[in-house]
Amino acid sequence: MGLKLYTYWRSTTSYRVRIALNLKAVAYESHPVNLVKGEQRSAEFQAMNPGKGVPVLELADGTVLTQSLAILDYLDHAYPDPALLPGDPVERARVMASAHIIALDIHPVNNLRVVQHLDKMGHSKADSVDWMVHWMTEGLTAFQATLPKGAKFAFGDRPTLADICLVSQLYNGHRWGVDMAPFARLTEIEETCLALPAFAKARPEAQPDAE
Amino acid sequence: MGLKLYTYWRSTTSYRVRIALNLKAVAYESHPVNLVKGEQRSAEFQAMNPGKGVPVLELADGTVLTQSLAILDYLDHAYPDPALLPGDPVERARVMASAHIIALDIHPVNNLRVVQHLDKMGHSKADSVDWMVHWMTEGLTAFQATLPKGAKFAFGDRPTLADICLVSQLYNGHRWGVDMAPFARLTEIEETCLALPAFAKARPEAQPDAE
Repeated sequence: MGLKLYTYWRSTTSYRVRIALNLKAVAYESHPVNLVKGEQRSAEFQAMNPGKGVPVLELADGTVLTQSLAILDYLDHAYPDPALLPGDPVERARVMASAHIIALDIHPVNNLRVVQHLDKMGHSKADSVDWMVHWMTEGLTAFQATLPKGAKFAFGDRPTLADICLVSQLYNGHRWGVDMAPFARLTEIEETCLALPAFAKARPEAQPDAE
Repeated sequence: MGLKLYTYWRSTTSYRVRIALNLKAVAYESHPVNLVKGEQRSAEFQAMNPGKGVPVLELADGTVLTQSLAILDYLDHAYPDPALLPGDPVERARVMASAHIIALDIHPVNNLRVVQHLDKMGHSKADSVDWMVHWMTEGLTAFQATLPKGAKFAFGDRPTLADICLVSQLYNGHRWGVDMAPFARLTEIEETCLALPAFAKARPEAQPDAE
């Protein structure tokens, strides 16, 4: 038995892990969890992940790993080639910091549970879209400002954690109508990444549970 | 010239980095940035950190590192003793995942900029407090469920990234009146940590800019 990935096609954090598994050519079996139907809140799922979210990676021995960035850290240790982060501690921290602008300053604030909570507080669908677009625009502006000039990918000539977080987040950006005009450098990187099979096969639309 | 830490006394992400620097016995100079006065949005500060937040760590050669988890990753590579994470990739990912419940599922959603945005959307101070307490209660419940039984600290007999994130977050928990009754294990860990000088010296109240 190999690796099992509990995933949802539109979950951008699941998308991150799918890209990393593909980049490292690690085979895995997809187990879809329908977040919109609330399957992540079932007693069975919570017993596996008290955090009630995807992705969850189950190893061959039954070990369960949660939280996308921790799963990516595991994959980078267990399958080091190609590495998702530079070897030099300062360069590594720089790439990680840029990735974290997306993974911490944007994604958690736009997470499905947060948007569902805004709904419970009486906000309209239009308010939720404004909310999502606001945090994406702020975060993508900051992310773009951290990038070096002239690189093929976000940092240098191969994809890193920063590209993985960016491409996944831009799926949401397009979906919710973020004005991409100020982010030409980001859509250029997105195009470069999506030309690679590892990214293309990880796209939401390419998943078995895509609707 | 040594390390400079741009910090705010009540910033829980700055608190994380202060604890790590103290645990590793790395000397640093504090440069307070008053977030409530908006000093993080000055042109000068943004030139250093487009993410407009603290902490920022400036190395002796002028290199600027941002994002607390990336700074902690740098510190763990540059000053490996004591390590903030276990050496085994699976154990490492487990401790990291628990820490990320706090660092990703709670903190970013309760960040000052998010709460200020709720205010702009017409919410009252009471709504903001409900919001913060809701995400802390959800996240701390999930965090507590991931902990092993019988450990002195969150995981095992010495502090890790999970303890660092927990103690910093509980400062906010107490401040905003989270009911701690269901979290006896967490306050026990907090007490154990705060008995160590590395944690005690990093407390918000012990900072030069504390009000």
